[in-house]
Amino acid sequence: MQNEQKRPLILVTNDDGFDADGIVELTKTLRNIGAVVVFAPDGPRSGMSCAITTVKPVFYSKLIDKIDFQVYSCTGTPVDCVKLALNEVLPVKPDLLVSGINHGGNQGLSVHYSGTMGAAFEGCVFDVPSIGISLCEYQPGDNFLESCRVAQVLVEQILKHGLPHGVYLNLNIPNIPTVKGIAVGRQSDGRWVREFIYEEVNGKMNFWLKGDYEMSGQDYSDNDITLLNNGYASLVPCKIDVTDYAFMEELIDNYDFTK
Amino acid sequence: MQNEQKRPLILVTNDDGFDADGIVELTKTLRNIGAVVVFAPDGPRSGMSCAITTVKPVFYSKLIDKIDFQVYSCTGTPVDCVKLALNEVLPVKPDLLVSGINHGGNQGLSVHYSGTMGAAFEGCVFDVPSIGISLCEYQPGDNFLESCRVAQVLVEQILKHGLPHGVYLNLNIPNIPTVKGIAVGRQSDGRWVREFIYEEVNGKMNFWLKGDYEMSGQDYSDNDITLLNNGYASLVPCKIDVTDYAFMEELIDNYDFTK
Repeated sequence: MQNEQKRPLILVTNDDGFDADGIVELTKTLRNIGAVVVFAPDGPRSGMSCAITTVKPVFYSKLIDKIDFQVYSCTGTPVDCVKLALNEVLPVKPDLLVSGINHGGNQGLSVHYSGTMGAAFEGCVFDVPSIGISLCEYQPGDNFLESCRVAQVLVEQILKHGLPHGVYLNLNIPNIPTVKGIAVGRQSDGRWVREFIYEEVNGKMNFWLKGDYEMSGQDYSDNDITLLNNGYASLVPCKIDVTDYAFMEELIDNYDFTK
Repeated sequence: MQNEQKRPLILVTNDDGFDADGIVELTKTLRNIGAVVVFAPDGPRSGMSCAITTVKPVFYSKLIDKIDFQVYSCTGTPVDCVKLALNEVLPVKPDLLVSGINHGGNQGLSVHYSGTMGAAFEGCVFDVPSIGISLCEYQPGDNFLESCRVAQVLVEQILKHGLPHGVYLNLNIPNIPTVKGIAVGRQSDGRWVREFIYEEVNGKMNFWLKGDYEMSGQDYSDNDITLLNNGYASLVPCKIDVTDYAFMEELIDNYDFTK
């Protein structure tokens, strides 16, 4: 007699809202692998980073309630969603959290601004193996077929091997018909430039945040942006502990705080 | 003849709003050291992390305009404030960015949720030496005298020695009459628990984010929370690059993404 294998429980969230194309397509793929609970914002929350809602309450509604598939929408940020789902809604700890598929890449510095990655961060805080997934294309009507294929490869490996305490994953997928594969890399060094465009409205200057990403001149060849440019999906493991241990030593040795 | 020493230019921001006690007291201290530009949110932005405003424009107003002291208030997040100040308002790159003094500690995991630390992060993105400063006390009427003394010690050292590319500082100060000194440490391991309290309003459940911080059972003795509990101001150097290099190797060696 074969062992009965329990289907994994997967928590799915995002920062584009529960009904965005990316999360809908991702959910279809993940339902082939396990039971899925979608707990996501009720509308767009791009650029929300790890923001939490402290000045007002948040609430949620259950929209779909099947045995192996539930959908909830929530008034909070992506991090609020993960906190609520894990603290108040899910009866057990899920085997995996997947955030995405985001409309737009979160490579390089964007890992810090992204609500998609904020949600993955928060799953990791709860010691749930957590992955943020983004497609490097903002336009609606994105073709998520290839992204879902790549996502499934990663999801199956993480369900099999897990992730260590304090580590979550940032997967970015180029918007091309055939991705060469998943390549492990590092967060590229760079920053946004030409960040604002402005317009005068009734004598008042309005500033819109836009801008272009500019890579640092000197970076390693395995940085995520270079991997994406070469046709790979980039996979960067991220740490919750942001302490710079090397510089800690230098602070102790070379700075004088005794005054 | 002595060399004429140019006074440093210091950008000051926070997440409690331009008129919070913490930033007002900090500004008084910093004006003894250099020219100060305050560019801060027009109201509370606690828990905003590195959030950016992309769905609507932001704008700002100049409230004070002296030769060596300007104050601006802005409708955006702490990160928006830093981006606007550095891109559009300051005529030159400042010598230092100081974010704070926050009402409430940002030790441990809170570095990720904090708008105060989001602003320090963003200054670092621009290669401006950047410090976030927090007093471990939420109540209004905090005594910022001792915090400002400690802040000044750090500010003078950073103006003298600078900071390397990609590193910013998280200074937390215990709310005690006499701080023992500044101790360099690491981000403690832990997380928030019992996070929500809820109330029923008109048949709907409202969830308020509250909670208590719980440290991991096993942590190093130089973690920031232990340093604070022992009467020191904790100073943690933080990295913009969150790549987990050790686990990168393991991902490459032990996970199979070739399917």
